[in-house]
Amino acid sequence: MPDKITIALDAMGGDHGAEVVVPAALDFLKRDAEVDLILVGNEEVIRQHLGGADNPRLRIHHASQEVAMDELPSKALRGKKDSSMRVAIDLVKQGEANACVSAGNTGALMATARFVLKMLPNVDRPAIATAIPSIEGHTWVLDLGANVDCTAEHLFQFAVMGSELVASIDDEIPEPCIGLLNIGQEEIKGNEQVKGAHDLLSGSSLNYIGYVEGDDVYKGGVDVVVADGFVGNIALKSAEGVAKMVSHFLRTGFKQNILTKLAALFAMPVINSFRKKIDPRRYNGASLLGLRGIVIKSHGGADVLAFENAISIAKKAVHTNVPERIAHGVEAQLEKRASA
Amino acid sequence: MPDKITIALDAMGGDHGAEVVVPAALDFLKRDAEVDLILVGNEEVIRQHLGGADNPRLRIHHASQEVAMDELPSKALRGKKDSSMRVAIDLVKQGEANACVSAGNTGALMATARFVLKMLPNVDRPAIATAIPSIEGHTWVLDLGANVDCTAEHLFQFAVMGSELVASIDDEIPEPCIGLLNIGQEEIKGNEQVKGAHDLLSGSSLNYIGYVEGDDVYKGGVDVVVADGFVGNIALKSAEGVAKMVSHFLRTGFKQNILTKLAALFAMPVINSFRKKIDPRRYNGASLLGLRGIVIKSHGGADVLAFENAISIAKKAVHTNVPERIAHGVEAQLEKRASA
Repeated sequence: MPDKITIALDAMGGDHGAEVVVPAALDFLKRDAEVDLILVGNEEVIRQHLGGADNPRLRIHHASQEVAMDELPSKALRGKKDSSMRVAIDLVKQGEANACVSAGNTGALMATARFVLKMLPNVDRPAIATAIPSIEGHTWVLDLGANVDCTAEHLFQFAVMGSELVASIDDEIPEPCIGLLNIGQEEIKGNEQVKGAHDLLSGSSLNYIGYVEGDDVYKGGVDVVVADGFVGNIALKSAEGVAKMVSHFLRTGFKQNILTKLAALFAMPVINSFRKKIDPRRYNGASLLGLRGIVIKSHGGADVLAFENAISIAKKAVHTNVPERIAHGVEAQLEKRASA
Repeated sequence: MPDKITIALDAMGGDHGAEVVVPAALDFLKRDAEVDLILVGNEEVIRQHLGGADNPRLRIHHASQEVAMDELPSKALRGKKDSSMRVAIDLVKQGEANACVSAGNTGALMATARFVLKMLPNVDRPAIATAIPSIEGHTWVLDLGANVDCTAEHLFQFAVMGSELVASIDDEIPEPCIGLLNIGQEEIKGNEQVKGAHDLLSGSSLNYIGYVEGDDVYKGGVDVVVADGFVGNIALKSAEGVAKMVSHFLRTGFKQNILTKLAALFAMPVINSFRKKIDPRRYNGASLLGLRGIVIKSHGGADVLAFENAISIAKKAVHTNVPERIAHGVEAQLEKRASA
């Protein structure tokens, strides 16, 4: 753990840019006494949003460009060498920051982070991991979209990375159990990659519990669910879709007439407490794993509270040195496999 | 359309067997004046559940064996030639029934149906399709688990079959628009199969609207969503998981104390109307597409109402001759492609 933690924030990234990132930084510093923050982006814009607010643990690092939310990753990588996103990652590479947080374009963030920071030894691809709510608390899922065609070995590496991440930063889960996302039908069970990953995981020293299905993510009983990015992303988006549908039907249902509006008043405390439990803002901050540095992706539409949560995740990852843990974890698993 | 419609029911299939299938058959006949039903299974057990009830449009066809819910498909296919599932499908093959409905083991039903009925010309693999609720009504999705490793051509065939199925049996959707399930990230968008299917679909005369994401299934705005069985199954199960989580939190929330219990009384009409909208029983009955015959899969845990719904879907599929429409649809698309 470093003496002092410094986190670089891409102040221009996301749907709201500095409008969210600057107040989130100020709020975070109020709650936190250990971390220094660097706001990376257009100095003038940042100063406008600071509105005179000052904090000795906050500084601005000017960057002249911005990566658009719909910009092609390859274009951002080639053409935006002074973007707020790129400079925030550069600061991590140069050791001026211990981690960076961006709400910008996922593809560009992934490509830039990989180019600048490079992969850890024995890790082939970066993966995106986040926690999502479940009946029993929450479940971590990776990969959420960085990799669409994965081999068994890739899935295996995701499992090791997910296990190390969660053991490091999730106080509630010191020894995460790992499940491999699959479908339930016997015999036609699993595609070739999933079957191969199952064999690799069964022979590992990870706390591997076998196959899980899509609904197990939300039931609980498994701490880390591993999937390729195509499947993981679609599972997550489908779940988001259902959550939005439920909330739509409840909202319109309670608005129907005077009686239902009265019912809403009575039901509100229950519905609000439920909303709070699954509040996506409390889960904001996905980790880009497998890199030689800590990069946290905030949701593009994050508000101040959500962005603060992403900064907290970055801080935890610095505290426990997640990249180093992952490097050791992967090495240990490879040694175990070689000696088997 | 045949003069008289006869549907064979696997009376022993599913978690509840004859206990659900027999009353569902009796209820269905009360509501329906056109269809004859055949209860296939252990005659003694069926008679017990009939309890003396009699209907000239209902007959029993004895079958001495049953396929267990966890039985391997290959084992059921080889060893259970007189199972209620097999005999129900045989009746379709022999022309004694126009369709069959089973709540039994999906893998065994798929394997047996494919073996007995054979595939339609130019269709490589059967697919499972069902409607699921959305904000705007419902969305049809296929494949839901029959195929785990699909080529672009398979996905294309699923799209044609889904389009023909929905145009045939869904009165609300005469010209279904088709979306291909994908993830949102640019550049890394889609795996190779999905990209290939996108090209095939773009060149077809289907009402193809391009890529959709997991949440679009529940938003509405697309009638048929095409995916390989691995992805489709995981998307569906994830959504089921979220729905169960929501219902768990609402239930426990409203049970917390005397105030929340009172709130529940007020909120109940709204919550019930919402529950009704997404009631899985109203959506029960998945179509096995691509076969030379009509086979409808009921959910294993279906109750009487849900099983009746599956019988209604079978009836509609007979009415509009779904297999013939699919055969024509596939042929027309292949001709279009050849002439391009």
